[in-house]
Amino acid sequence: MALKTPQQFLDTLNDGRVVYCDGERVPDVTKHPILKITNNWVAMDYVMSNDPKYQDLLTDIDEDGDRVAFALQPQRTREDLLRLREVVKLWARATFGKPSGAKFVAKDGLNAVTVVSRRVDKKFGTNYAANVEAYRKYLQKNDLAFAMGLTDVKGDRGLRPSQQVQHKDFYLRIVEERPDGIIVSGAKAHISQVTACNEVLIAPCHAMKEDDKDYAVAFAIPVNAKGITMISTQPEVAPGYSLFDHPITGSVFINDALITFENVFIPNDRIFLKGEWEFAGDMAVMFANFHRLSAETYKAVELELVTGAAVLMAEYNGIEKKAHVREKLTWLTMYTEMVEILGKAAVEQSVKEEDSDLVYPNPMIANICKYQFADNWHTATKYLQDIAGGIVATAPSAKDFFNPETRPLIEKYLGGSARVSTEDRLRMIKLVKDIGSSYEDVLTIHAEGSLEAQKLSIMLLGDYERYKAAAMRAAQIKNKKEHPLFADLPKFPPKL
Amino acid sequence: MALKTPQQFLDTLNDGRVVYCDGERVPDVTKHPILKITNNWVAMDYVMSNDPKYQDLLTDIDEDGDRVAFALQPQRTREDLLRLREVVKLWARATFGKPSGAKFVAKDGLNAVTVVSRRVDKKFGTNYAANVEAYRKYLQKNDLAFAMGLTDVKGDRGLRPSQQVQHKDFYLRIVEERPDGIIVSGAKAHISQVTACNEVLIAPCHAMKEDDKDYAVAFAIPVNAKGITMISTQPEVAPGYSLFDHPITGSVFINDALITFENVFIPNDRIFLKGEWEFAGDMAVMFANFHRLSAETYKAVELELVTGAAVLMAEYNGIEKKAHVREKLTWLTMYTEMVEILGKAAVEQSVKEEDSDLVYPNPMIANICKYQFADNWHTATKYLQDIAGGIVATAPSAKDFFNPETRPLIEKYLGGSARVSTEDRLRMIKLVKDIGSSYEDVLTIHAEGSLEAQKLSIMLLGDYERYKAAAMRAAQIKNKKEHPLFADLPKFPPKL
Amino acid sequence: MALKTPQQFLDTLNDGRVVYCDGERVPDVTKHPILKITNNWVAMDYVMSNDPKYQDLLTDIDEDGDRVAFALQPQRTREDLLRLREVVKLWARATFGKPSGAKFVAKDGLNAVTVVSRRVDKKFGTNYAANVEAYRKYLQKNDLAFAMGLTDVKGDRGLRPSQQVQHKDFYLRIVEERPDGIIVSGAKAHISQVTACNEVLIAPCHAMKEDDKDYAVAFAIPVNAKGITMISTQPEVAPGYSLFDHPITGSVFINDALITFENVFIPNDRIFLKGEWEFAGDMAVMFANFHRLSAETYKAVELELVTGAAVLMAEYNGIEKKAHVREKLTWLTMYTEMVEILGKAAVEQSVKEEDSDLVYPNPMIANICKYQFADNWHTATKYLQDIAGGIVATAPSAKDFFNPETRPLIEKYLGGSARVSTEDRLRMIKLVKDIGSSYEDVLTIHAEGSLEAQKLSIMLLGDYERYKAAAMRAAQIKNKKEHPLFADLPKFPPKL
Amino acid sequence: MALKTPQQFLDTLNDGRVVYCDGERVPDVTKHPILKITNNWVAMDYVMSNDPKYQDLLTDIDEDGDRVAFALQPQRTREDLLRLREVVKLWARATFGKPSGAKFVAKDGLNAVTVVSRRVDKKFGTNYAANVEAYRKYLQKNDLAFAMGLTDVKGDRGLRPSQQVQHKDFYLRIVEERPDGIIVSGAKAHISQVTACNEVLIAPCHAMKEDDKDYAVAFAIPVNAKGITMISTQPEVAPGYSLFDHPITGSVFINDALITFENVFIPNDRIFLKGEWEFAGDMAVMFANFHRLSAETYKAVELELVTGAAVLMAEYNGIEKKAHVREKLTWLTMYTEMVEILGKAAVEQSVKEEDSDLVYPNPMIANICKYQFADNWHTATKYLQDIAGGIVATAPSAKDFFNPETRPLIEKYLGGSARVSTEDRLRMIKLVKDIGSSYEDVLTIHAEGSLEAQKLSIMLLGDYERYKAAAMRAAQIKNKKEHPLFADLPKFPPKL
Repeated sequence: MALKTPQQFLDTLNDGRVVYCDGERVPDVTKHPILKITNNWVAMDYVMSNDPKYQDLLTDIDEDGDRVAFALQPQRTREDLLRLREVVKLWARATFGKPSGAKFVAKDGLNAVTVVSRRVDKKFGTNYAANVEAYRKYLQKNDLAFAMGLTDVKGDRGLRPSQQVQHKDFYLRIVEERPDGIIVSGAKAHISQVTACNEVLIAPCHAMKEDDKDYAVAFAIPVNAKGITMISTQPEVAPGYSLFDHPITGSVFINDALITFENVFIPNDRIFLKGEWEFAGDMAVMFANFHRLSAETYKAVELELVTGAAVLMAEYNGIEKKAHVREKLTWLTMYTEMVEILGKAAVEQSVKEEDSDLVYPNPMIANICKYQFADNWHTATKYLQDIAGGIVATAPSAKDFFNPETRPLIEKYLGGSARVSTEDRLRMIKLVKDIGSSYEDVLTIHAEGSLEAQKLSIMLLGDYERYKAAAMRAAQIKNKKEHPLFADLPKFPPKL
Repeated sequence: MALKTPQQFLDTLNDGRVVYCDGERVPDVTKHPILKITNNWVAMDYVMSNDPKYQDLLTDIDEDGDRVAFALQPQRTREDLLRLREVVKLWARATFGKPSGAKFVAKDGLNAVTVVSRRVDKKFGTNYAANVEAYRKYLQKNDLAFAMGLTDVKGDRGLRPSQQVQHKDFYLRIVEERPDGIIVSGAKAHISQVTACNEVLIAPCHAMKEDDKDYAVAFAIPVNAKGITMISTQPEVAPGYSLFDHPITGSVFINDALITFENVFIPNDRIFLKGEWEFAGDMAVMFANFHRLSAETYKAVELELVTGAAVLMAEYNGIEKKAHVREKLTWLTMYTEMVEILGKAAVEQSVKEEDSDLVYPNPMIANICKYQFADNWHTATKYLQDIAGGIVATAPSAKDFFNPETRPLIEKYLGGSARVSTEDRLRMIKLVKDIGSSYEDVLTIHAEGSLEAQKLSIMLLGDYERYKAAAMRAAQIKNKKEHPLFADLPKFPPKL
Repeated sequence: MALKTPQQFLDTLNDGRVVYCDGERVPDVTKHPILKITNNWVAMDYVMSNDPKYQDLLTDIDEDGDRVAFALQPQRTREDLLRLREVVKLWARATFGKPSGAKFVAKDGLNAVTVVSRRVDKKFGTNYAANVEAYRKYLQKNDLAFAMGLTDVKGDRGLRPSQQVQHKDFYLRIVEERPDGIIVSGAKAHISQVTACNEVLIAPCHAMKEDDKDYAVAFAIPVNAKGITMISTQPEVAPGYSLFDHPITGSVFINDALITFENVFIPNDRIFLKGEWEFAGDMAVMFANFHRLSAETYKAVELELVTGAAVLMAEYNGIEKKAHVREKLTWLTMYTEMVEILGKAAVEQSVKEEDSDLVYPNPMIANICKYQFADNWHTATKYLQDIAGGIVATAPSAKDFFNPETRPLIEKYLGGSARVSTEDRLRMIKLVKDIGSSYEDVLTIHAEGSLEAQKLSIMLLGDYERYKAAAMRAAQIKNKKEHPLFADLPKFPPKL
Repeated sequence: MALKTPQQFLDTLNDGRVVYCDGERVPDVTKHPILKITNNWVAMDYVMSNDPKYQDLLTDIDEDGDRVAFALQPQRTREDLLRLREVVKLWARATFGKPSGAKFVAKDGLNAVTVVSRRVDKKFGTNYAANVEAYRKYLQKNDLAFAMGLTDVKGDRGLRPSQQVQHKDFYLRIVEERPDGIIVSGAKAHISQVTACNEVLIAPCHAMKEDDKDYAVAFAIPVNAKGITMISTQPEVAPGYSLFDHPITGSVFINDALITFENVFIPNDRIFLKGEWEFAGDMAVMFANFHRLSAETYKAVELELVTGAAVLMAEYNGIEKKAHVREKLTWLTMYTEMVEILGKAAVEQSVKEEDSDLVYPNPMIANICKYQFADNWHTATKYLQDIAGGIVATAPSAKDFFNPETRPLIEKYLGGSARVSTEDRLRMIKLVKDIGSSYEDVLTIHAEGSLEAQKLSIMLLGDYERYKAAAMRAAQIKNKKEHPLFADLPKFPPKL
């Protein structure tokens, strides 16, 4: 076997999967005008891994001599992580800041189950690790696209899975055990690009207690398995959309669908956790640990696009020398670079996972990186919109621009600086509109963990004993728990 | 004559006007699926002024015994302004925070030309004030809807009107004077609801120099006048849209169109400024002075909706007791109330215009109010989206919800707290999505003057002599320009 | 009797009171080099009320024909509150932003006990209201300075008064009841200007439960009563200080002392609450309600000084035209004016207290005002320091400036713009240093209630039913609790 | 020769230098009660480099077998910079966050003149590089303390050196050239620890034009040279101060003095620039490049102390579990760690200087690091003060605490949580007061370059072509200047 071509990949998607989009059952996702956006965006993974220019970066030769995706290899060193950053940057640069997703999210889930399955096997004598390794090999050999199903729909956020009132399926669970496998029901929400994937990898989204043991389940399954239904996100564009009007939303439809499971059968060799509730939390934590590299890397790439749009709009409007504009562009530059610096630093100071031979980015740094990105996004769009002007809200559509009756008027009146064509100015205006969408805003603060999740992590990771030792020393307070960094310091102020 | 009914008003709109929308010439705006949104929203003015519950607030009986819109009466006292605030609030509450616009914007332009025409007549012996008064009467007697055309398209923002390079029409101008009137060409951008109005009132958007005297022109004209073309803003919704998915964008389409003038004839009695370039700036300033009441009043009403959505999403998700949620709701409450308090204070401390018998809100307070509203908007949407959750980005469409095949799955899995139906939760999620749109963001910071414009006004209005006197007194520095508030104060510290 | 002269007032302070300052018992506060700063600052109240220029504003003629302080009159109308604002502004302007305190704080406590004593009498048939009225009359007739003792020292903030572990006196309490009065012990912290007052008025600082009834006590007592000890705040300046170096800290020493009570006897006619624990919370709340006028009014006066210092430093350094400086000055202007506008609006929308004939500022507005002031202070000092330059940290002392050996060098080298003398520039630099002190920072965020207290109030005062009604209407959700502002609105979008 | 002992170093300071402090000429700085704070703080460099525990880190053996300070060695590799960070951290941890300054600042000036002298020699055939090398050797062999004199006093900030009006010495300049050297006059401001140093290194603070060539001068000279006068910063503490009350200000007095030059002779072999005005700007830029490592490294150490104080005050007050306190501690943790991460990343991505064999931190990262530190400081002190409480402003002095008459009252009433002694709580309160001082605030935003300087650097360093290329690709705009990162990317969306 070998890498799939883009067309080979696309052919796999017409496999009987049950997908709904905007009120209709989609008979063949490869022919649907909106779902094709997702398919083609995911297919970019295959376009690039078949491109000799990028193949050395994106692929490895495995022990059988087959070319396999580097993203599916386990990362064992800081250098692997640095290379993975380059992979993610390439994916993101190629596709307007949002990395093509054939393996982008779920590879981190695969690493998470790799780590946790070893822990479970060690404690309970189970055999999940072998299942995971076989699955990894299967994915590599078949060059499959797979999605990660982590987030349950949750119902009342104040109640645990087994406490839910309306029904018991707000978290995905085992409803029956059979000799050859298990039957599961439930749903996972916000499952990026799942309609354009071959497989979905499922794991619990947070820690469980013993009562919740039926919910402690992890497995992988083809998305066309019987009992699975995918309901697409409401599309941002309608059929017949124009890329001029929708440069991003017309190119990238992540389609973070709802995927529901009604009595779906999972064979034994695809199960990675089955009732060992003590390890449910580990799954979520380890996924986050690995996924931070991917998440934080593409943000900086996305921001270069945002900052670039601001610089260009300033030039196109002829206001790039104005003091307030320079101030805003400086802020955007700092924001862009800071996310890149922090993302890289997290990898430079990567952490070795104890129960495996895998490494992942420094969690404190990675959380700060994500927080800085997400917390500042709305300020960035404010600055971008401020520079671009009210025309972002009021511009006519591409159809008006290309209508020969109105084009001369638009050409004449919506021009800006003489250095740029009206068409280019309008294209940039439309890009600014897409960047500031409600969809982007929400993605920014919720994808890869909310702002509150990052704050919680940072609080838990703080080195409080060090901080306290420093303050006590300065205040001349005796520290009962001497801290190694401060214990041996000479007296200050000195007696001289 | 009397007030128009909603239907009478709508009938006036099919008058041969030249309107384009999304690439097509619209033969009759009253039949266009998207432009009808604008028409019906504007018609709410007529719905309410014909409603006995609101008629006392919204209308007056004029000297002829006719019932006329209060909004078209000149405001002469603080009490008039307080009543006008109630009018604007009613308009805004009825239409989801965006006041129905039959007179909402242009009434402030009418007051501006009222003031400035008197100044011009006084200096040059012209007769513009009479034209304005006749026009005001005409509007009142016919209960017309009219739009305000202030903002020129501007071309290169670094060049004055007469300096523009590509062509000379980046600002609307007089191209020919005739005995019976003038011929004008050019364009105005972002002209709210103009496609659903009867008339448009045109004035310069900033100060001019002598070279620019052809651009110093103000007048009013029916929008179906020969030579006028209106090109609609790209719609936010497509035909067949659902109010469930688009509760605001499906109800309010302000349609801030581009309106172009190709050799349009303006008769003498409709001209309010014609070459008196020294007064061009006054037009823009006075419009802003009057319009601040309208602008700042509806913002607070819009914010109650935003804050309400946040409170409800917190409850629907079952997280309203969480500390970070309470913190955000408190911030939203403060933001909402502060805009209301500042808007009201601006009216309480209203200013008498010297060259007329009109009053307008205190400019310092009104500018601060607008700035606080606009500068904090993106933080507000961030908090709202944070509370609402990622589902704002990923929810399926109304068609999926109402599709009997998928409805049971959505009902089951997208429920939140048991206290609320899935349908209500989804409706609120869609409202949150609409609130955070790129369109809303841009409207917030650019409509009624940009953030930089407010900062400039605040800087110019600062009472620096008072501030400096206070600091010099404390620093024991002799103040050569004694300030009345400080000159007589007893020595401090005292000699006792 | 009549108003006291400043000297008559100062003479009353040598009355045997037990005061400690910087490690020493002070035999006579009127002779102490640092405590005199407090005395003279408080005496400014007497300087001004004896000044014919201000007497009409500051005083009234009572029913006996005596001239009494207006501040001690009960405020019954909005106009009274507006006058009180003028009084506070005058006090604050005269004394560098910090109102001279003979009655400044405690008058609000007097109003609080006025209200609450009536409530207690009504419920329990007690006779406290008469005690309060007699005390008010006594203060008026003798023109006394009095301090407000509200804040207990609190010990562990997580425990109620009766739960405290180390001892039971962390909150002031009744230790014995006698026929002629009570014996109290405990302490109150941060008691502004108490060392320069004649009397102190004591009330509980928050709500109590039944277990805490001994702590539900309010009374007034001369500060030289047996058993009272006052321990001064550590002074900011040392004897021999220079006003040049310390323009504010050398003129105003609020001396928020610790006042301790060791078995102090309180006679019956000075008791305003004695064990009626249900009303302890009312005392604190009503004090806050009244005190907000005082607190919010002087802040805006203080800010004019801060902003003035920034404007002057910009001019003295020759940088007032720089874009970033203009931006910062604009921000400071907005901050200054916003606090003034909000403070005034709170009074314009004042609230009638139900159980008395008193009025107080609108609590929502007053809390927002205080929050905006306090939350932005550190940004204001950052901007001020940024404009003033590093010299604020590194300037030599006044003694160097006035030393003939070094003066020529300082004159020569520390000059700025040629428009200003080096001396004036240095004076302003020293003022900037005083404004940014740790003391000022802490005063800003803690005096008159912390930021968290304001947030809590704002959260409690939010009009959530209105907000929710607005959002539900827009989302087309049926509101079971119809809201009056929304119930009658016409359907939108309309069927037309 | 060898390293000096602390006592040997202190002995060198009584050398006839002309120092004024608080109005008096200081005959011997080693005996002055306040200047001793500076001396002893600087002497900590000697304490530690003589301490076997730290000697390996702090010193190297030179080619002669002498032990010399590592800080005076040229840094040639990333590893050297990482070691230098450890040196600076040790210095900073030992002395409460402010690195002892015998070589801390001026070493970076030495590197700057090392680089620039080579450039000048190369262009003009001068021999400055040899002078610099000889001077470096002299400093090493004698283990001297030296200060950096960069910032001129500047007069009117809007005028260049030669344009100044009042006099021509607002920037230090050559007033005479002699065969054996030059005569200079002028002054440098904010010269940290200069009164406790042996030497001062002088360089221009910004770029010059040809008219300003007399101001393009760099040299080194002993501070006791004839004609030099140092005027100390006004001290923060008075003689007899207590470390309890002033834990930081009583331990560290940086004494950023004014140093004036009246016709001071500089011998030829100590001159590093003399009129080559084209290189004046390079001096300032290169100093900044090198100094960033020092500056950014100690900030993170200082912040651990600040955050530690906040954590401890929360515990001491019993409020560490409150939601708002946790939120603030989390913010402080992120702030502390982010400065550390950015500082380290700047070194990890260090830059090779072209005209020498030296390396320095990445300027973009280092500027962002400094900006983040300085811009957030005031928020940090606000949070710290918020947590610590009003007592920071109102606590009595150490003398009261240690006075047996008042100690029992203070012990009793100023206790907090039962887990901590009143003494420790008071010590921490005093530390918080010191941290929030005006001095600290100003130091934060002005030392090592102002916020505006960092913004300017970031703006200049932005990779705008990359940003623009990203935006143009997404907007489908043809980029005439193809960018290497984007030029080869496959078309997106793809044709599949």
